[in-house]
Amino acid sequence: MDVSDLVARVVRGEPRAVARAISLVEDAAPQLRAVMAALAPHTGRARVVGLTGAPGVGKSTCTDALVAALRERDARVAVLAVDPSSPFTGGALLGDRVRMQRHASDTGVFIRSMASRGHLGGLSWATPHALRVLDAAGFDAILVETVGVGQAEVDIAAHADSTLVLVAPGMGDSVQAAKAGVLEIADVFVVNKADRDGARVAVRELRQTVAQTPREPQGWRPPVVSTVAVSGEGIGELVERLDAHERHLRGSGEWRRRRHARAREEVEAIVLHTLRERFGGLSGRADLDRLATEVAAGRLDPYGAADTLLAELAGA
Amino acid sequence: MDVSDLVARVVRGEPRAVARAISLVEDAAPQLRAVMAALAPHTGRARVVGLTGAPGVGKSTCTDALVAALRERDARVAVLAVDPSSPFTGGALLGDRVRMQRHASDTGVFIRSMASRGHLGGLSWATPHALRVLDAAGFDAILVETVGVGQAEVDIAAHADSTLVLVAPGMGDSVQAAKAGVLEIADVFVVNKADRDGARVAVRELRQTVAQTPREPQGWRPPVVSTVAVSGEGIGELVERLDAHERHLRGSGEWRRRRHARAREEVEAIVLHTLRERFGGLSGRADLDRLATEVAAGRLDPYGAADTLLAELAGA
Repeated sequence: MDVSDLVARVVRGEPRAVARAISLVEDAAPQLRAVMAALAPHTGRARVVGLTGAPGVGKSTCTDALVAALRERDARVAVLAVDPSSPFTGGALLGDRVRMQRHASDTGVFIRSMASRGHLGGLSWATPHALRVLDAAGFDAILVETVGVGQAEVDIAAHADSTLVLVAPGMGDSVQAAKAGVLEIADVFVVNKADRDGARVAVRELRQTVAQTPREPQGWRPPVVSTVAVSGEGIGELVERLDAHERHLRGSGEWRRRRHARAREEVEAIVLHTLRERFGGLSGRADLDRLATEVAAGRLDPYGAADTLLAELAGA
Repeated sequence: MDVSDLVARVVRGEPRAVARAISLVEDAAPQLRAVMAALAPHTGRARVVGLTGAPGVGKSTCTDALVAALRERDARVAVLAVDPSSPFTGGALLGDRVRMQRHASDTGVFIRSMASRGHLGGLSWATPHALRVLDAAGFDAILVETVGVGQAEVDIAAHADSTLVLVAPGMGDSVQAAKAGVLEIADVFVVNKADRDGARVAVRELRQTVAQTPREPQGWRPPVVSTVAVSGEGIGELVERLDAHERHLRGSGEWRRRRHARAREEVEAIVLHTLRERFGGLSGRADLDRLATEVAAGRLDPYGAADTLLAELAGA
């Protein structure tokens, strides 16, 4: 594989090159770091919107409607669907993608499901890499859709500029769950399937909860938007709210602060992953055993043995 | 401080030098690694016996009686009392030491309480260092006494050749606790205060539990010894059982295996501690912030930033 050719094609936004680069991320391919280095100067422009919520609230339908709305403005849009709960992308996510076929012939839309293949330290590592690829490929907006299962919701918020939390009426305790776990990460609440019974109650309860949550003096108070994503109802308002949030982020300096924090976490994750990998590799090999034998025999002290291992780590 | 002078005096067994070296361990002094390196060739001889059990079972009295019995054979004996539950050695442990005063004028006995001062990653790090000092000082046996509080019991077993678990009748559920948590770590069970009501029941129950526990084919089955440590009753049998355990360890190759595993853990602990300390120091400093700014601006890729930090770690 010619790295510079692949990078040039990614930067031109060629779908096959973008797909190829994301496969490198999934595979933790050795060429990944060269690709990332070459893509870096082309990053920093895309707006990242995370969508999360329990299964069945209509995340994919909502994503689909958002793509259509953003395309009306001629924005180039990428969708990244991540399933942190399974090492391979589950059938549900791939099945949901099928309904996106209406964008299949639209070269301004790129849709991709991503799986963690287990050797990357999970999607916390892979997601920012894939976002860099899509960012460098010139997409104006990247929608990251994830199944809302506990930690995954919080993780997605760490990578996004704005995070949408979706709930639906008649989903049992979904509103309750939204209150409990995701209040801090939601920038916009969406009550989808708003034509169903209980939608008004859900909206009112969420608004009350948001109103009772303490905020920074100039802070953002998450709006609650009602949508019927399948018919497009409320999507216009949702896009307006997202735009308002972006203006708030840029105006308050929070845009810069969030992106700096993300870069910091990305670098830290790579450093810690590298250290663990290097040490894991060593402790599995004969070195540590051999050194321990020397230490047990009194021919070497434990600091000396540790120095030897640390030197190997540094040179590894 | 003259390191080589201190080391020479430790190796000659001078009590004040031994005490000084253990203070270096407690303080995580910078000279520690030079001292450890110089002591290494003099280690590997001492037999390490751990004593653990709930407060009130008579650990200190039993330690005292064991010291007296080992002294009758002219063995040089060190006692290391560790209290993992408090950053400074508590009054109880120091108070218990007072009864050891009968050994105070005996130059063949060294007694020391050790505190974790909190900057060493706990006693898991300090205990093996102190054992190395005492080993190099030529003590034939080192008795490590610890308050039996959960993890501490297991930790002490990791450092000892033989582990005594003490229980006492009439201590509520002490026998029950011994069954539940410490069955794997006990090489010898001691039912102390055996002149009290319930001692026979405690012994019988422990023996039943031991008998029901599956063992390796040639494995060691922990004996249950009754003692009245305060009068010395049963201490002779206890010493015999300990000797039998040592013969078993040496005959089965387990002696070598345990010491190798201990050295391995010691080296690993130092490496991981060093890595964490180096990275902790860096992430607190401006480097990571500065690099994150470059990454966020697209002027640097996260791998490049990670490399810079890793190089600093290696050189730190």
